[in-house]
Amino acid sequence: MRELGEFGLIARINAGREQGPGVLLGPGDDAAVVAAPEGRFVVTTDMLVQDRHFRLDWSGGHDIGRKAIAQNAADVVAMGATPSAFVVSFGCPPETPVDFVTDLADGMWAEAERAGASIAGGDVVRAPLLVISVTAFGDPAGREPILKSGARPGDVVAVAGLLGWSAAGLGLLLDGNDTENYRCVDTSYWSEVVAVHKVPQPPYAAVLDLPPGSEPTALTDVSDGLLADLGHIAESSGVAVDLDSAALADPMLDPIAQALETNALDWILAGGEDHAFAATFPESVDLPAGWVRIGRVLEGSGVTVDGAARSGPTGWESFA
Amino acid sequence: MRELGEFGLIARINAGREQGPGVLLGPGDDAAVVAAPEGRFVVTTDMLVQDRHFRLDWSGGHDIGRKAIAQNAADVVAMGATPSAFVVSFGCPPETPVDFVTDLADGMWAEAERAGASIAGGDVVRAPLLVISVTAFGDPAGREPILKSGARPGDVVAVAGLLGWSAAGLGLLLDGNDTENYRCVDTSYWSEVVAVHKVPQPPYAAVLDLPPGSEPTALTDVSDGLLADLGHIAESSGVAVDLDSAALADPMLDPIAQALETNALDWILAGGEDHAFAATFPESVDLPAGWVRIGRVLEGSGVTVDGAARSGPTGWESFA
Repeated sequence: MRELGEFGLIARINAGREQGPGVLLGPGDDAAVVAAPEGRFVVTTDMLVQDRHFRLDWSGGHDIGRKAIAQNAADVVAMGATPSAFVVSFGCPPETPVDFVTDLADGMWAEAERAGASIAGGDVVRAPLLVISVTAFGDPAGREPILKSGARPGDVVAVAGLLGWSAAGLGLLLDGNDTENYRCVDTSYWSEVVAVHKVPQPPYAAVLDLPPGSEPTALTDVSDGLLADLGHIAESSGVAVDLDSAALADPMLDPIAQALETNALDWILAGGEDHAFAATFPESVDLPAGWVRIGRVLEGSGVTVDGAARSGPTGWESFA
Repeated sequence: MRELGEFGLIARINAGREQGPGVLLGPGDDAAVVAAPEGRFVVTTDMLVQDRHFRLDWSGGHDIGRKAIAQNAADVVAMGATPSAFVVSFGCPPETPVDFVTDLADGMWAEAERAGASIAGGDVVRAPLLVISVTAFGDPAGREPILKSGARPGDVVAVAGLLGWSAAGLGLLLDGNDTENYRCVDTSYWSEVVAVHKVPQPPYAAVLDLPPGSEPTALTDVSDGLLADLGHIAESSGVAVDLDSAALADPMLDPIAQALETNALDWILAGGEDHAFAATFPESVDLPAGWVRIGRVLEGSGVTVDGAARSGPTGWESFA
């Protein structure tokens, strides 16, 4: 980086990129211009810090770039909105290899395109460690934003996407990810679980392709952990949520939990960084493709599992 | 921060805030919703890193917050757009005093309101040092965005705002800011110069209140240094710029430069972080209030001073 410099890097990472239809003016001026055809836009921002949200001994630039975009795109989609553009601020030490940064940009672009959008601009600064801040934009796409506050007693609680896989993958990485230790079990898919931790794959289409008439009453991204995020829906909506542990069970996670001497249900309920979607649907709605029923909305407050309060971990807290 | 936690902090810094008309949905859901009444919005992002863009021994939270918002608002205004909203990502160590963070938020809100907008949301994460990433939005306000590429030979080059004061203030801070050393000169206003370094005060109104018919042909924020930023206009527009050093001279800076044994014109031409505005106007336009003529646009390329290339510092480069 020291040799290429800020402006050289910006030219390198923007070369040959093709902006999506949402970006009316890309990098190069004081600011970018993004379309908001419905007269309003959805916006969210997330910061990723080296050794806190990613580790360079586990992930390459491409994976980190995909993760940074995916977790922001998931927040846009969790409003029922269609991603339109991203901007990225990036801090790194001067000795950072340029190849790492171009891999990072390639990963960001790949995930932005998977979400149907492009990267409209950003900022590159010097920092003692890698810091990535992404801001994501979306169009409401013809409907009111789907908030956390719309759940009603009687609604069905459902999820789309993988729960607990990210936490299980993290567990494997912390354990050294050495499947040689576990010769008597089928470990063939464990690398896939690790990959899900490194690069979350939010099922954007499960929300964006919802058939008209099957809109959720409430919707959120599962990032802090299922209990925590459903807790936000319960609190915002003034309702209670009860989960069905049998519906949440994932037989793929059990052997990993056993090997690591922990509890797969803790990963599923409180692991965090799932970037699945959790929603409440009116009972009359046939659950659309990709959604699995995991519980129901009741009168009251709080989140229970099989009718009882859950002890143990409840989710991610930045300063715990 | 460790005691209050992420969600406690978010509640504390959002308490009692009143969103501006540009923010349709503020903090609390997966994303915010911001108005874009003209069907498009201007967006820019900047990251500030502790000890690189601010120092805790020089600046308190309020000043750092104002600076973070001001430098982003200046980029929105430099497109000819009116600030509508900001989002903020913030990383800090768990031992950060909560008062520092609330001061930072208060400073951000104060500057956001000075720019006519509010803070729609953000993210708080743990980091080994303070990192602030701001993304700013603006409405084109009924006109085409004013780009760097519109300067034409014959145009007048003008600036609004203070040039070189930020660099002079930095010089004084690096020197220990001890006016006792300089007893024979009038140092009464030096603290004001230091204050301009800590909190830039972009003259938003000089752009936002431009009378119809007096629009610049090109416009930019002066952040990298006047030569560098006018160089971007010259390159984007395919023109040359020649500056008049007599018009740039600032007698307030001369005694400080003399005391610090440096050259005030270097500060003015290449100091950076001025967050003044530089523009080119058609020769027929009477320069509006707040604008000072400093040179002219010629055929050719590059930026000269009094007809000659300038040796010496040319501006900010993140990885130099």
